[in-house]
Amino acid sequence: MKNFEKTIIYAGKWLQMNVTKFTTTNGGPGIWEHVSRPTRVSDSDGVSILATIKHDNCIKLITVAVYRIPLNQWVLELPAGMIDAKDHDPVTSALRELKEETGYTAFRENVEDVGIIAYNDPWKSNECSRLIKVRVDEKLNENKKPVQDLDPEENINVELIPLDNMQQHLGVLMKEKNYAVDSRIYLFSLGLAFTNK
Amino acid sequence: MKNFEKTIIYAGKWLQMNVTKFTTTNGGPGIWEHVSRPTRVSDSDGVSILATIKHDNCIKLITVAVYRIPLNQWVLELPAGMIDAKDHDPVTSALRELKEETGYTAFRENVEDVGIIAYNDPWKSNECSRLIKVRVDEKLNENKKPVQDLDPEENINVELIPLDNMQQHLGVLMKEKNYAVDSRIYLFSLGLAFTNK
Repeated sequence: MKNFEKTIIYAGKWLQMNVTKFTTTNGGPGIWEHVSRPTRVSDSDGVSILATIKHDNCIKLITVAVYRIPLNQWVLELPAGMIDAKDHDPVTSALRELKEETGYTAFRENVEDVGIIAYNDPWKSNECSRLIKVRVDEKLNENKKPVQDLDPEENINVELIPLDNMQQHLGVLMKEKNYAVDSRIYLFSLGLAFTNK
Repeated sequence: MKNFEKTIIYAGKWLQMNVTKFTTTNGGPGIWEHVSRPTRVSDSDGVSILATIKHDNCIKLITVAVYRIPLNQWVLELPAGMIDAKDHDPVTSALRELKEETGYTAFRENVEDVGIIAYNDPWKSNECSRLIKVRVDEKLNENKKPVQDLDPEENINVELIPLDNMQQHLGVLMKEKNYAVDSRIYLFSLGLAFTNK
């Protein structure tokens, strides 16, 4: 593939629609439709947070069910958010988003891994986020009764999902609360359950 | 949130750009920019395939590195594809895409799980795919020397990644071949590695 020629079809505030013409490997014409975010200020668009907490004597993943306009449905996702221009580093963004979306407080020393930048839909956008793994201390006073700090356009329920038999717990949540499920959470649960190591 | 009013900004062949106006929970105006696929003919846009094979005496995940125009980079992903109107069911699509993209043959009886429909980027699109888990039989004659069957616009390398220490193998591939990594593969590897069950 060669001779890429990108045209911006729509320059929105949050999303840009692009059409790229190219030449395929056999010399024919090709067209690729894709989107990008004009808001990126760092090496990735955002952060996603794999946060665990000990709760009722078992380790649970802290997830958020978010009402998503593109689907008109609630979707179970990892806490996440964009990296702001004023953020010192991705960990700053991650701890802020975790607090705002879930109410839970974690500190820099609770971060177990500042992960790689991963791509969510590379076939249709260059959107990516850094995956940050953090352990939330359930004994902290701030975490006894966590309180969210949401924007007016955000509707978010916090759901703690036990890692033991996580796939089964996901199924129950989907059925009882009519949640859709984000693919990152589902693949994490498949990894946890994999038995042929 | 209420009073959703969607406008189609661009109706492409593969992607549609939408802007939805809505009223936020405090009564103010809101705008959400999002995309959708006009090509959906089933309950999901596509299939993703979690295919494993025994190779050199260890279990490996069959992944594909695909040259992606939206990033101008090679990205390590799960084999995947769209569901065609003529497909009998998602398993038909999955076995075809696995064969075309990787050369490996699997049959209906090798499918271990026809998984849930999961959402890849619910904050910006309603795109979803069914996650199908399949075991590839390394002893089949067809799988001794697998041959891809690619379209002219596809550039795909097959990469077999050992599940044991998968995170480390991912790091080596990223460094040595300058691959970006899809978030589903990364989260699966995080699940495999999780030690606090």
